[in-house]
Amino acid sequence: MRGTYYTFYQRASNAFRHHPSLSKVLVVCTISGGGLVAYSDVRRPFSGVYADAAQPTIKKKKLVVLGTGWAGTSFLKNLKDPSLDIQVVSPSNYFAFTPLLPSVTVGTVEARSVVEPIRNIVRKKNLDVGFKEAECFKIDTVNQKVHCKSTQKTNSGGNEEFTVDYDYLVIAMGARANTFNTPGVIENAHFLKEVEDALRIRRSIIDCFERASLPSTSEEEKKRILHFVVVGGGPTGVEFAAELHDFLYEDLTNLYPDLKKYMMITLLEAGDHILNMFDKRITAFAEEKFKRDGIEVKTGSMVVKVTDKSISLKERSTGESKNLPYGMVVWSTGIGTRPVIIDFMKQIGQGNRRVMATDEWLRVEGVPNVYAIGDCATINQRRVLEDISAIFSKADKNKNGKLNVEDFTGVINDIVERYPQVELHLKSKKMKNFVQLLQSNQDSAAKQTTQLDIEKFKSALSEVDSKMKSLPPTAQVAAQQGEYLAKCFNKMKECDENPEGPLRFRDSGRHRFKPFRYKHLGQFAPLGGEQTAAQLPGDWVSIGHSTQWLWYSVYASKLVSWRTRFLVIGDWARRFVFGRDSSRI
Amino acid sequence: MRGTYYTFYQRASNAFRHHPSLSKVLVVCTISGGGLVAYSDVRRPFSGVYADAAQPTIKKKKLVVLGTGWAGTSFLKNLKDPSLDIQVVSPSNYFAFTPLLPSVTVGTVEARSVVEPIRNIVRKKNLDVGFKEAECFKIDTVNQKVHCKSTQKTNSGGNEEFTVDYDYLVIAMGARANTFNTPGVIENAHFLKEVEDALRIRRSIIDCFERASLPSTSEEEKKRILHFVVVGGGPTGVEFAAELHDFLYEDLTNLYPDLKKYMMITLLEAGDHILNMFDKRITAFAEEKFKRDGIEVKTGSMVVKVTDKSISLKERSTGESKNLPYGMVVWSTGIGTRPVIIDFMKQIGQGNRRVMATDEWLRVEGVPNVYAIGDCATINQRRVLEDISAIFSKADKNKNGKLNVEDFTGVINDIVERYPQVELHLKSKKMKNFVQLLQSNQDSAAKQTTQLDIEKFKSALSEVDSKMKSLPPTAQVAAQQGEYLAKCFNKMKECDENPEGPLRFRDSGRHRFKPFRYKHLGQFAPLGGEQTAAQLPGDWVSIGHSTQWLWYSVYASKLVSWRTRFLVIGDWARRFVFGRDSSRI
Repeated sequence: MRGTYYTFYQRASNAFRHHPSLSKVLVVCTISGGGLVAYSDVRRPFSGVYADAAQPTIKKKKLVVLGTGWAGTSFLKNLKDPSLDIQVVSPSNYFAFTPLLPSVTVGTVEARSVVEPIRNIVRKKNLDVGFKEAECFKIDTVNQKVHCKSTQKTNSGGNEEFTVDYDYLVIAMGARANTFNTPGVIENAHFLKEVEDALRIRRSIIDCFERASLPSTSEEEKKRILHFVVVGGGPTGVEFAAELHDFLYEDLTNLYPDLKKYMMITLLEAGDHILNMFDKRITAFAEEKFKRDGIEVKTGSMVVKVTDKSISLKERSTGESKNLPYGMVVWSTGIGTRPVIIDFMKQIGQGNRRVMATDEWLRVEGVPNVYAIGDCATINQRRVLEDISAIFSKADKNKNGKLNVEDFTGVINDIVERYPQVELHLKSKKMKNFVQLLQSNQDSAAKQTTQLDIEKFKSALSEVDSKMKSLPPTAQVAAQQGEYLAKCFNKMKECDENPEGPLRFRDSGRHRFKPFRYKHLGQFAPLGGEQTAAQLPGDWVSIGHSTQWLWYSVYASKLVSWRTRFLVIGDWARRFVFGRDSSRI
Repeated sequence: MRGTYYTFYQRASNAFRHHPSLSKVLVVCTISGGGLVAYSDVRRPFSGVYADAAQPTIKKKKLVVLGTGWAGTSFLKNLKDPSLDIQVVSPSNYFAFTPLLPSVTVGTVEARSVVEPIRNIVRKKNLDVGFKEAECFKIDTVNQKVHCKSTQKTNSGGNEEFTVDYDYLVIAMGARANTFNTPGVIENAHFLKEVEDALRIRRSIIDCFERASLPSTSEEEKKRILHFVVVGGGPTGVEFAAELHDFLYEDLTNLYPDLKKYMMITLLEAGDHILNMFDKRITAFAEEKFKRDGIEVKTGSMVVKVTDKSISLKERSTGESKNLPYGMVVWSTGIGTRPVIIDFMKQIGQGNRRVMATDEWLRVEGVPNVYAIGDCATINQRRVLEDISAIFSKADKNKNGKLNVEDFTGVINDIVERYPQVELHLKSKKMKNFVQLLQSNQDSAAKQTTQLDIEKFKSALSEVDSKMKSLPPTAQVAAQQGEYLAKCFNKMKECDENPEGPLRFRDSGRHRFKPFRYKHLGQFAPLGGEQTAAQLPGDWVSIGHSTQWLWYSVYASKLVSWRTRFLVIGDWARRFVFGRDSSRI
């Protein structure tokens, strides 16, 4: 590889890498004046990729994955089929652990600690994967190809566009920040979706403090420059405001003591409360804590315009207008559909929708062999009432127009599996099973007979569809969708022969796979000052310091690789001992 | 500070910070899946600054320091006089440990690990220091003020210029990269002087690999894009080439195996050898090692032009021209004077010089109360022969036109101290002392008399001035100058009364301070693959793996703070276990 010499590093590294028995060994030792914690990462030599080159007769199916966010990366990590020719196209050559982005904005965690190169993630697997750092700008479903272009601005020039053919296409391109077309937002506000955004915010905070330190800056200007505004009271906005507060009061006040009196953070929320998707107890605690911390929470006011130095607000209740001078504004009000997806939707007949629709198997509606996972699409759930006649006739085996207990039991599982809202409805009504639901609308006499005609069946299920809920655009959903879809690909051949899904009520036979089912594992809302709120499954609410430690452990365990885990824990330790860095890099 | 709540972090941090006895304690503990090494850094509350505000009657002398590189920071770190009103003006709000910049370009060490905010460095001292993140664009010696402007491009606008008055001015602005006016260099080449340069190079390397991975890139283009050129065979260029080689062959070949055959590194040097300021053994070893590694070293060829895709070379010996297509070029051919210094030199009558001149006390020649340290100036050493008559008459106490041993001994120390070249000359001639030198040119008969007239005195010292050598523009020199000047300021009042310097030969009395004397501590040249060459004092040469470990320990010990020390050692450990990161951030 590099001549005759072997360095100490190489020799030691090779010992780790080539002897699996040595790997997964934790080596802890201290050097004078610092510490060294070494954890071996198993690196297999890059061999698997061409393992199948010896069988050139079988033409590999081409699988193209667009995007390397939570959905795309989770899909790639769970994929196991070496017979696929996989091409990944993404403008980022890395996966970013986005839940830590608010921490990156203030340096609690470094940007490099929360990213992992995609090539690193996939090369450890026995897959045939190629990666292209490019942006897909057009999907051509007729010729089954995607048009891509490089996002680099280098001195290379020339023909930067290329196309990639596909047999299967997985769209995992995520979403863009939603500005609601508010004028001036794109020009003047920071977003918080990408690693670059977080780095820009970090520089911008330091810029504000350095500018306010200059003798040419007036008192009034200092007040304006050190006014930090966060628009959007969702989990990201709240966490950013909390992190910013900690950075300002734990670190920057020590370095810029004269400026302490000018510092201010305002959190703007158009609704009545911040964190409105959380339990009321959490919302109340957060608002109370922010008040104590001196973070001004302004609810019920909408941003109508952003200029380079001020934000125009409109009070929702009174219609009153107000002008808010600011130094830096971070915009975090939800997500919108990317232009390339909007174009694609027009092409496939979804032009009248706001968000791209898939079915419960994550297949994009209206086009074959195209899947969509993560924030770029929503699952267009089928209503039970839409299929009610088909379900009834499928269940009514002897075709007598009546359903009895025996008839039910044959299809109950299929109904529950096919329509997730049924289970939610049963839960909300605290019913044990489907039979109880069917009996609930009947008088006691009828309950004895346990026979239903189509009308009674309909009325029993009439409320079920109201429980349909679209999934939130979170990392958790995206990761679960990626994993689900990868598992479908892994067992595709198997399931072609032995379908595992529920009955097709409108057709014959069964669905190939079970439909995607989201399992909510809870959600955190870090509130700063080592306090975190968590809403856990079963509506269990936990708030405080202990929850912060739960947050640390969950996030450390969820990190994508041992490298990032090591780095993030190191960053937390560093911040504890040395504080956050305020160098303007 | 932040309401009633104290977090775990705050409580624990405060324990560390407020109890000096707890500080300097090394806490090592491991958390599941990672490690935590905590070293307490003593942080005194920010109190010293206004300690003197109670005595407003004494008007503080205003000291302005321009620049926060090696010279400026070393000056600030060693300054102890609380009676000065110190203003620091620099475009960077941090000090960067520049010897590790080549490591930062490839991610062996992270950028944040080699920087320390200036405010952090100075606030630990009992000094009255203000920092302004701005660039000095004009020095007005008539009104004793510097004109500065903010370097930020933010939305604040307005009057960005301001002036700072000084009683003493310390110029430590460093130098700029020298392009020798070669066309296209500024537009197309990377430099390696600032942290930002290193980060840009890192991104650029990954860009080249990602671009070469695209299907739209032709074979020829791949070859061009993956051709990395380094111009300048000095220590920085050589170290960068070595680091780049390690990054390419230790990390990137694993992630981009198909591109290995296109990779190439060329090192261009106009002279006959690389590392020509080092011992010949080191040069030979370096050239041999680079050859083995496949780094093409091209000596004796000058770059005459750089376009966006190719470099025009001219063979020095044959005059032959050649075109070298490249993907990335790093320019590291020495330093030039900054425009603001050139303007300043014209103002003070140094317009005909290339570099600003100071005397041996680091005072800028031709202007009072202005000092210059580091790369922005050179010491204009006084020739012995220039002062020879004055020295003679000072030594000739009885004014008989002859010097005897007694006369010598009265001034020997002063001469040696005032003219550093004398000592160098003695060393090179392997003479024990000055008397031996004076006797060396005489015949044995005259030696007995040990009397010298002016002509003999002149001829004895005639060769001494040939040993005058300007100091190299290194971190070591800059740091020593900063420390020297700070110590002069610390003892200024004391030395005003009791001058400690040598005799003034042309005037009466003694110089206030001893002149600056550089003490060379050796120089390293890391050559990649865990091998380093070092030229140590006494012309001791050391090459190989053990020198690399010497390099690690010296650099770890020289780092500016415990924080950076901890981070850099952590980075080295991380690279050993996980390799270097190739995410394009």
